[in-house]
Amino acid sequence: MNYQKIIQEIYTEVYNQSIMGMMPTYIPELAHINPNKFAINLSTLDGKNYGIGNYDEKFSAQSIMKVFSFTLAYKIIGGEIFKRVGVEPSGDPFNSLIQLEQEHGKPRNPFINAGALVVCDVLIDELSDPEEELFGFIRKLSGNEKIDYNPKVYQSEKSVGYKNKAAINLMKAFDAIHNNTDEVLDLYYKLCSIEMTVQELSHTFLLFANEGKLLSTGEAILTKSKNKRLNALMQTCGFYDEAGEFSFKVGLPGKSGVGGGIVAIHPQKYAVSVWSPPLNLKGNSVKGMKALELLTTKLGWSIF
Amino acid sequence: MNYQKIIQEIYTEVYNQSIMGMMPTYIPELAHINPNKFAINLSTLDGKNYGIGNYDEKFSAQSIMKVFSFTLAYKIIGGEIFKRVGVEPSGDPFNSLIQLEQEHGKPRNPFINAGALVVCDVLIDELSDPEEELFGFIRKLSGNEKIDYNPKVYQSEKSVGYKNKAAINLMKAFDAIHNNTDEVLDLYYKLCSIEMTVQELSHTFLLFANEGKLLSTGEAILTKSKNKRLNALMQTCGFYDEAGEFSFKVGLPGKSGVGGGIVAIHPQKYAVSVWSPPLNLKGNSVKGMKALELLTTKLGWSIF
Amino acid sequence: MNYQKIIQEIYTEVYNQSIMGMMPTYIPELAHINPNKFAINLSTLDGKNYGIGNYDEKFSAQSIMKVFSFTLAYKIIGGEIFKRVGVEPSGDPFNSLIQLEQEHGKPRNPFINAGALVVCDVLIDELSDPEEELFGFIRKLSGNEKIDYNPKVYQSEKSVGYKNKAAINLMKAFDAIHNNTDEVLDLYYKLCSIEMTVQELSHTFLLFANEGKLLSTGEAILTKSKNKRLNALMQTCGFYDEAGEFSFKVGLPGKSGVGGGIVAIHPQKYAVSVWSPPLNLKGNSVKGMKALELLTTKLGWSIF
Amino acid sequence: MNYQKIIQEIYTEVYNQSIMGMMPTYIPELAHINPNKFAINLSTLDGKNYGIGNYDEKFSAQSIMKVFSFTLAYKIIGGEIFKRVGVEPSGDPFNSLIQLEQEHGKPRNPFINAGALVVCDVLIDELSDPEEELFGFIRKLSGNEKIDYNPKVYQSEKSVGYKNKAAINLMKAFDAIHNNTDEVLDLYYKLCSIEMTVQELSHTFLLFANEGKLLSTGEAILTKSKNKRLNALMQTCGFYDEAGEFSFKVGLPGKSGVGGGIVAIHPQKYAVSVWSPPLNLKGNSVKGMKALELLTTKLGWSIF
Repeated sequence: MNYQKIIQEIYTEVYNQSIMGMMPTYIPELAHINPNKFAINLSTLDGKNYGIGNYDEKFSAQSIMKVFSFTLAYKIIGGEIFKRVGVEPSGDPFNSLIQLEQEHGKPRNPFINAGALVVCDVLIDELSDPEEELFGFIRKLSGNEKIDYNPKVYQSEKSVGYKNKAAINLMKAFDAIHNNTDEVLDLYYKLCSIEMTVQELSHTFLLFANEGKLLSTGEAILTKSKNKRLNALMQTCGFYDEAGEFSFKVGLPGKSGVGGGIVAIHPQKYAVSVWSPPLNLKGNSVKGMKALELLTTKLGWSIF
Repeated sequence: MNYQKIIQEIYTEVYNQSIMGMMPTYIPELAHINPNKFAINLSTLDGKNYGIGNYDEKFSAQSIMKVFSFTLAYKIIGGEIFKRVGVEPSGDPFNSLIQLEQEHGKPRNPFINAGALVVCDVLIDELSDPEEELFGFIRKLSGNEKIDYNPKVYQSEKSVGYKNKAAINLMKAFDAIHNNTDEVLDLYYKLCSIEMTVQELSHTFLLFANEGKLLSTGEAILTKSKNKRLNALMQTCGFYDEAGEFSFKVGLPGKSGVGGGIVAIHPQKYAVSVWSPPLNLKGNSVKGMKALELLTTKLGWSIF
Repeated sequence: MNYQKIIQEIYTEVYNQSIMGMMPTYIPELAHINPNKFAINLSTLDGKNYGIGNYDEKFSAQSIMKVFSFTLAYKIIGGEIFKRVGVEPSGDPFNSLIQLEQEHGKPRNPFINAGALVVCDVLIDELSDPEEELFGFIRKLSGNEKIDYNPKVYQSEKSVGYKNKAAINLMKAFDAIHNNTDEVLDLYYKLCSIEMTVQELSHTFLLFANEGKLLSTGEAILTKSKNKRLNALMQTCGFYDEAGEFSFKVGLPGKSGVGGGIVAIHPQKYAVSVWSPPLNLKGNSVKGMKALELLTTKLGWSIF
Repeated sequence: MNYQKIIQEIYTEVYNQSIMGMMPTYIPELAHINPNKFAINLSTLDGKNYGIGNYDEKFSAQSIMKVFSFTLAYKIIGGEIFKRVGVEPSGDPFNSLIQLEQEHGKPRNPFINAGALVVCDVLIDELSDPEEELFGFIRKLSGNEKIDYNPKVYQSEKSVGYKNKAAINLMKAFDAIHNNTDEVLDLYYKLCSIEMTVQELSHTFLLFANEGKLLSTGEAILTKSKNKRLNALMQTCGFYDEAGEFSFKVGLPGKSGVGGGIVAIHPQKYAVSVWSPPLNLKGNSVKGMKALELLTTKLGWSIF
């Protein structure tokens, strides 16, 4: 299989399509990114890497990072975490408070905003220096000590994040948040402001294609069973209320972010990341979705 | 009509009924009030006053005060205020965020929590010293310079008001709040922490039975037309999602508070206030509702 | 008070306003009515009548008739009826199923479609010949033996009434309907297809301004207490999810229909009816609302 | 891999667990089934079959059959079908009307009741003898000419199916159903009343593990691409609002029915069916879920 040729073809085909999308105007720092940025990167379990376009340029990873915070919390407290967040798709827009109120402050899953806030609350409960340890964990998984958040994006999101503030206070009203709401929000915004390249993302997500073991050392970060469950969660909940659409068209577990990034993995095979800032109405990268749909079509591989 | 005898009869009848109710545990300072407190006070337009029970004891007026903040805002900006709050009953619990989200941050009416927060935001927009001027206004209406808020109740509510914090941030996310959310919440909690006796409440609400004019001086606080509209608002929206029940059983415009107080007026005739802390599931005083139902039955007067 | 002059002024003022509205296209027979029809009729308790425009032309009274079916059921089974329908405004569009599902098949009030269907179900439970007796009752109240339904409108509504069919089956699923659903729908559609003139409507509704007694004979159809409660219900629930708006602007209890009619009463004083087919988004007559707002402004009378 | 031994172990382990569940009382004919029935059957792509318990006893397949009606409609009109049903999980109970109303009559996916009704409507649009051709199709897939529906179950469901009647009329109100509602419901109830054994189910579902080709003849019923998409749909939408839970614990695409059956497939490997009538609150077989969770744990295989 000539991966480089395949991603080159997809890159060209998608790049030239006139696809409409919107920039996330509610985060000023993200609204000013060049909308023509486009990158694809595929990393295989046998250590090969295939990148194209802006594949070594850092961008705001946003919600993709929620996979790492969840991984750490799941590693630490195990199945206990599901007393505080569910495993069901929300079926509602990613920041809706309606369901959260109807379900008494328990978020549907760890990847919607409210669920990721609960995960941060768990980390603050469990860790002595949550920020240091969470960032250390992500640096270890990526094998890159320089992974960090962008302070401008962090400030920008924090200053306008009224809907997250609404969500966390609603959960606090239901006793679903243990710590000070500002402290939880702070960790959450630092997490979401992390910047990575698609190459780094693919490289790091290989862990989940590799039964939960680091490719470099073989260390088991998650047990095989927990790793499967995490992949199942990404499959059903990784794309806001478009998880069905992604599953239907791409057929791989994955996670998207409003920075325009998407990562997906094929168990036992590869991890693939794309980046293109313009978003569809559901908050997922328009070109990213298209590129991944073409990829599984051309490769003839999906998990189904 | 022997009013004193009638309220005496009602007082005795209701006092002895074994009516169940709950104390509002989410506000610690209110949860510790003696649940047996009970007071009725009727003031007529010809200047007579009839009180019984704890009628000259101050209690936390809570949401009843929202009538005054709305009166001031309506007086200042007139019908413009209805661009920011509606005039329809919510049909939902008084602090539900669901409707607020579905209706893009515009509260149904000025008496639900979200609506009262918007009214406070309007006052901060319009006044140079909002707290001083709002309290001055209420003192003027009541003819009592000593009306003030209880700092302990204020602190107590402020420290646990997560649901209000959720609501105001949700509205801020929709650009429905202009000022700093903490500043708006602060004014709101001071307003809700005002303490008055049922005698003072009846006396002050006579204004609304008197076509918007102060009984003492004849000064028009609201025009006759605005006063009618305010009364109509109290009729349809004054009792959270139990406005229909109150209208059906009592048949007067009024407003209740979670401190256990209820005030109602009969246009051209009288204002009546009751106080009994235990609440029903809708947040209205159980004995207060009962007492007012008996009152309009015994008087043979409702507006219908 | 020169009523004829006042309604003449209002008629002219409103007739000439360029007010937009929609015809109810989902009922073909109603969609073809001349949208320029316009009528006002005021009847006073002292037996005078003041009409203008098409005031003696029959039109489809529609939901206004739900007041009569409810009156009959309330007369027969009294307060028991509130075990099956509530007294709260719905806060939702008049034919929404959402609330009905959330509240386990108990309609919010007897004037929304679902509630009126339950009232018909009660009448079928209680009467040996429901259609004959209901129509006989309405004829008696109106003093007009010729009151009848329009068979074409009846057929037209019945053939396309999918949303009512959905509602009644949903209630049946909750055991909230006792009789055969088709039988209940049939009575409902006959009721809604009744035709009356605004003069007849005003004349008949005088009953509710007269403490529940027929003006002609003094016979008590409802007790004074039940009559008050019915008026309170019209005040809070008579205008779909625009009850607050009507209460706010007009300040009288009343009921509207999608045929473009509105009736309102002032207790102890008068009944007034208007007819103009174009509707606003809430399903109420645009010109009708405007005319009644002007009427209470010019008369200086509302119940508040 | 000794499949027979594995399913024997699971059978024993689950059979002896004291697991609580409910019988579906709203369908009288299903409520009387012996709740202790229990069967597991695994069929592999190499033609082997492993059954235990009541594996050759017919039971009511119910919603599992919706996979076949969808397969036929998808085969006939292709992607056009997604103009009429979505591909997203509902996140709401399987027969909720709320979402259906909010989304203007377009069901979330073809496996919730409303979606399956639309699929039946499509078949009536497209086929000259819908019942004959749909049943012929299912018989062909199963290689069993005797597959048929149970007339008593069909009558039983039809006579009490008020919620489905509500749903189809609501969709009809949105023009989302083309044919006569009774005709569509009739086909739907015949489909759901089909009886099969777990052995027959496993055998028939091998098609979907086999890239859409019949195992017996190699005939392509669905293209490889359509077959993947169908599997993705079962993964995200096959278990009402418990799809995430099933995906998380079992990790295979599948479909459940209120008759207590569940079928799941592992692409390229096998199809497995279980039957145990008692249901959890979400409408899925309690023991069936447990057995399949154990199966993928013991086999060490899921798609993730």
